[in-house]
Amino acid sequence: MEIVVAKEILKANDLIAVANRMKLDEAGVFAVNLLGSPGAGKTTLIEGLAKHLDGRVRIGVIEGDLETAQDSQRIEALGLPAVQINTGGGCHLDANMVSSAIKSLDLDSIDLLFIDNVGNLICTAGFVLGEHHRIVVLSVTEGDDKVTKYPPMFQRADTVVVNKMDLVEFTDFSLDRVRDDERKLNPQTLVHEVSATRGDGLAELADLLVVGRQAWIDSSGA
Amino acid sequence: MEIVVAKEILKANDLIAVANRMKLDEAGVFAVNLLGSPGAGKTTLIEGLAKHLDGRVRIGVIEGDLETAQDSQRIEALGLPAVQINTGGGCHLDANMVSSAIKSLDLDSIDLLFIDNVGNLICTAGFVLGEHHRIVVLSVTEGDDKVTKYPPMFQRADTVVVNKMDLVEFTDFSLDRVRDDERKLNPQTLVHEVSATRGDGLAELADLLVVGRQAWIDSSGA
Repeated sequence: MEIVVAKEILKANDLIAVANRMKLDEAGVFAVNLLGSPGAGKTTLIEGLAKHLDGRVRIGVIEGDLETAQDSQRIEALGLPAVQINTGGGCHLDANMVSSAIKSLDLDSIDLLFIDNVGNLICTAGFVLGEHHRIVVLSVTEGDDKVTKYPPMFQRADTVVVNKMDLVEFTDFSLDRVRDDERKLNPQTLVHEVSATRGDGLAELADLLVVGRQAWIDSSGA
Repeated sequence: MEIVVAKEILKANDLIAVANRMKLDEAGVFAVNLLGSPGAGKTTLIEGLAKHLDGRVRIGVIEGDLETAQDSQRIEALGLPAVQINTGGGCHLDANMVSSAIKSLDLDSIDLLFIDNVGNLICTAGFVLGEHHRIVVLSVTEGDDKVTKYPPMFQRADTVVVNKMDLVEFTDFSLDRVRDDERKLNPQTLVHEVSATRGDGLAELADLLVVGRQAWIDSSGA
């Protein structure tokens, strides 16, 4: 019974996601779905990237959390437009929530939209939101076994950002293991290491997003 | 529609959890449900506690993961009985899965059962398994905002174990903030800090579990 219902929900979600995508395409907004465990550093990554993207692309952010507006307040403190979605216990964003959030953003003044998903390495993987690119943030303090233990998430990642590299020397985290495991799961996925707090690797990641957005515009004629 | 189904599932889960609890009570097995984000250090905590509990209580472990038997292999390497549950994508253990796992354990040779839940700070909170005690593991590298951002999990915790204290000096994590936030949410919850890898605080936590189990036996006459 519940499986049938879940399938219907996913189908409805996909349809709304397509509508979101069309709306974003029309406005020339490249949308990045940011996923990862609680505390992987998704919001800090956006804060760090904002400096490197300033003057190159105009950023907007949708923040997803169970409760509180703490993360959207952090983004607004940078002078960037942010919309907070509170799921009220729900373990992931869905396309319908993002559809509502998009309506309260001025898409004409945004080139790059970060969707900062609920902290969850499982439930968020199954729900497309209309995004053009998926970044999974994995922090080194979570351990290097996560790609094999949470395959649906890592299988669908366009980019895996390995964060908190400033702490790697205090852990037994092997970047080689993550690269190997990810290659087996999805050889198209890019693995890129950063320290969002110290800034290492953020300039390169910002470049990748600018290039990715431009390639998308060139190919889609958006 | 899906809300009704979800409620029915939760009701069925609760009934099976009661049956699990009765079975554990009868065998004198004190069950601890270990919850937390992916990589918070739940399995490492069990490994660390096992040394301090050796000769005092006999341990068994149920390991919950989406896929792989990596964690149960870690436990078996310590010479402890372990049963692996693979949820195949499911974001939490439920009472039915634990009921099956209990059947393949020799309860008469176990005093303390750790249930190492799926790494998830949201979905696992809503499903009782038949446990006597709930430990939520929060690592300092996840940040000190998690109690306010994931209240259902922390509201239902008997103990919050703050892990990776060996890394706290490299973060801006405030233990005072976590204690204050937890006190507002649930003043009965104990907050205890450890470093599962370095061993700090594990002797005290092991003592708490031994004392907790004894108090439960004395009160229930199990």
